[in-house]
Amino acid sequence: MYALWKPLIDTLRAGTPLLTVEGGEAMKTLPVVRRLWKKLWQYEVERQDVVVFIGGGSMLDVGGFVASTWKRGVPFVYVPTTLIAQVDAAIGGKTGINFKAGKNLIGTFAEPVAIWAYRGFLETLPAREVRSGWVEVLKHAMIVGGALWELVLARDFTQVPSLAILEQAAAVKWEIVAQDPTEKDRRRVLNLGHTLGHVWESLSLSQAIPFTHGEAVAVGLVQEAWLSYQKGYLAPAHLDQLVEKIRSEKLLLPLPSFTWERWLKTLLQDKKRKAGRLYVPIWAAPGEVRIEPVRVQELQAAVRWYKKLLR
Amino acid sequence: MYALWKPLIDTLRAGTPLLTVEGGEAMKTLPVVRRLWKKLWQYEVERQDVVVFIGGGSMLDVGGFVASTWKRGVPFVYVPTTLIAQVDAAIGGKTGINFKAGKNLIGTFAEPVAIWAYRGFLETLPAREVRSGWVEVLKHAMIVGGALWELVLARDFTQVPSLAILEQAAAVKWEIVAQDPTEKDRRRVLNLGHTLGHVWESLSLSQAIPFTHGEAVAVGLVQEAWLSYQKGYLAPAHLDQLVEKIRSEKLLLPLPSFTWERWLKTLLQDKKRKAGRLYVPIWAAPGEVRIEPVRVQELQAAVRWYKKLLR
Repeated sequence: MYALWKPLIDTLRAGTPLLTVEGGEAMKTLPVVRRLWKKLWQYEVERQDVVVFIGGGSMLDVGGFVASTWKRGVPFVYVPTTLIAQVDAAIGGKTGINFKAGKNLIGTFAEPVAIWAYRGFLETLPAREVRSGWVEVLKHAMIVGGALWELVLARDFTQVPSLAILEQAAAVKWEIVAQDPTEKDRRRVLNLGHTLGHVWESLSLSQAIPFTHGEAVAVGLVQEAWLSYQKGYLAPAHLDQLVEKIRSEKLLLPLPSFTWERWLKTLLQDKKRKAGRLYVPIWAAPGEVRIEPVRVQELQAAVRWYKKLLR
Repeated sequence: MYALWKPLIDTLRAGTPLLTVEGGEAMKTLPVVRRLWKKLWQYEVERQDVVVFIGGGSMLDVGGFVASTWKRGVPFVYVPTTLIAQVDAAIGGKTGINFKAGKNLIGTFAEPVAIWAYRGFLETLPAREVRSGWVEVLKHAMIVGGALWELVLARDFTQVPSLAILEQAAAVKWEIVAQDPTEKDRRRVLNLGHTLGHVWESLSLSQAIPFTHGEAVAVGLVQEAWLSYQKGYLAPAHLDQLVEKIRSEKLLLPLPSFTWERWLKTLLQDKKRKAGRLYVPIWAAPGEVRIEPVRVQELQAAVRWYKKLLR
């Protein structure tokens, strides 16, 4: 990001202390947090100051955690620079870092005082990043249905979304989160596609080229949609619409190699299980998601169906 | 604490995973936090679990930070075992650890789901701990005035407070904090005696026997009361009452050796300064505290007066 936008960032540097950090999921560690706390200490950041974080979802996750725990919380602003961060990661007040191979095990609920999303940043993203980001836009369209669902189906995922789509996709998350800031209930619909998506994201780490988050979620959305169809919720026409859209965007990706034993272990590590049962957001129709108890065997059947689909 | 209450703690151990940690201000570090996060990970603590912290203020400060940042917050219970923790530290939702020689620079605002205060724990405290804890009781009595002020003046600080006094002293903090959970305004009255108290606590660290927090605050309360008298707020009779009480409890302690340069540096490190000015809670009368801007020279004069008082 810094390499691509150096002149802009260096302009900011003239007016304020500025630090650059290597982005990506691998940065979400305690040593990086410690380094950022140290910077806030050196700059003598007080509660009346504001800290601005510019970057992708990982940068915002770490930055929000650092700011929300510095002097028990200093105000911070998010400037998301990736598609996935603009429509998803920057919104919702979840901060976090990884710990002991567990994702976001350490974190806080803390809201930025402002989010500044600039579409121009998306123009310099790699094509794979744009396509992956679209998957969360698609997920939001599945949740809200209506005009956004029709719009997204008609769009080409190799292009940067229009400002109108960015706004609507961000608004879906914004409105759901406002109803449930600390993820007690309603907010769980946002995990659509993520129950299996997280498993594939995790299992793909041993591949030469691991899945992006969006790629893994695309697979999860399709598999969980089939599950919904099997349970009698989703109409076959809607399942077909989704599968064909994912296929046409080249997101119907082959699964990483796995054993069912490892698959199950990865699935059950997910922190969203509740008293041993799996509660999964189920897409019943565009605009309709419900949380349903699901047995592990049903999820396995969905994976088997997907494997056949790919043949 | 564990050494004194081993049979009780070992009884708990039979029913639940239990970990003991060495207490005291020196434990409020990132490595200890890391160790506790690791335990929560090993025990697979989820959001529906509850973590209980038993100990003095430092244990609760660290524990609350660990629990409030684990999976973005798991419920926790405080069992304060010192006088100062029962009437002060356990209440108010401030968690924190020290960083780079700065007190509580890293922390959160997070409330325990319950506070269980058992007076029996206080019976095994060292005499110095009891007397130090009384200073925060006294501070709360100064803030609220009325019957509690009269009660506290009449009590002997070598004895454990009655349950009635414990309850009333805790209630003072509880009610103020409820009006201002994130320390924006009203809550600042609780810093009575702490502007100078913190300075002495910090400067005394180079002594063979540093001040306890309560001892440092006792000195701060007296000096700041004189300042209030000088500014025309506090009646001389109230100043005398306070000085004589502190003196009779052997808390009119000699100051640590210091240079004014170091004194000033320590004073200005305090995170409660606002845009360069010092806002100090001023005791105008029992039951009346106001936040006033104060010049450094006025604080210096209070210190000089105190030195003469000791001669």
